[in-house]
Amino acid sequence: VTLSQIPEGYGDLLERPLFAHVAVVAQDGTPRSYPMWFLYEDDRLSFTNTSGRPQTRILRRTPQFAMSVLDPDQPYRYLGVAATVEAITPDPAGTFFDRLADRYGLDVRLDDPSDRVIITARPAGFWRQ
Amino acid sequence: VTLSQIPEGYGDLLERPLFAHVAVVAQDGTPRSYPMWFLYEDDRLSFTNTSGRPQTRILRRTPQFAMSVLDPDQPYRYLGVAATVEAITPDPAGTFFDRLADRYGLDVRLDDPSDRVIITARPAGFWRQ
Repeated sequence: VTLSQIPEGYGDLLERPLFAHVAVVAQDGTPRSYPMWFLYEDDRLSFTNTSGRPQTRILRRTPQFAMSVLDPDQPYRYLGVAATVEAITPDPAGTFFDRLADRYGLDVRLDDPSDRVIITARPAGFWRQ
Repeated sequence: VTLSQIPEGYGDLLERPLFAHVAVVAQDGTPRSYPMWFLYEDDRLSFTNTSGRPQTRILRRTPQFAMSVLDPDQPYRYLGVAATVEAITPDPAGTFFDRLADRYGLDVRLDDPSDRVIITARPAGFWRQ
């Protein structure tokens, strides 16, 4: 049972620089969970990753995923999102990585961003507590 | 690619009262993610839930799940666990709920714990950053 819109009063959990725990389904049908940076903009979720990491490899095969974001200030308040990957595009200069690093307040630049990718996804459903 | 043992130096993420983001696979094959309390003891993970909530309903059907626990003090450090549910047992007095509430420092007792269950699971693999 999921909602089709962001539940009222929960939008801040997509705006603030919080970690999303991203749930994906591996090739053997069992799930995996990975904390990831994210950006929500223009009704799309975007993530930075590398082409060789499990998240990217799994999402190329099985684009449906979910994520949950917990409010660190009210730890029984969270938002869940089900989404589908629309595109995995190269980010060879690490431009999108830099943007997320700024958003999350991490002062780091990549030595070699050549295998960076941007994972872009469309939210399809929401749940919350 | 998962490890068969808790990676060295990551055990604290299972001992501390942190939230696990639990990834499950719904009936349609897509994942869901839910922040949950947990206890790790005697090589088993335990969770409190109610018999009617999505987590319990999904895990009765598809017992393989994953979870990730992020270190709030070092937010690029986390532990992922793949696990399989061994048992879902009634907790009609809410005894296990009370134990977890104490562990998480929440001063609340249930009005009606009659539909409470304990979900017990065996870890099968680990990943971390």
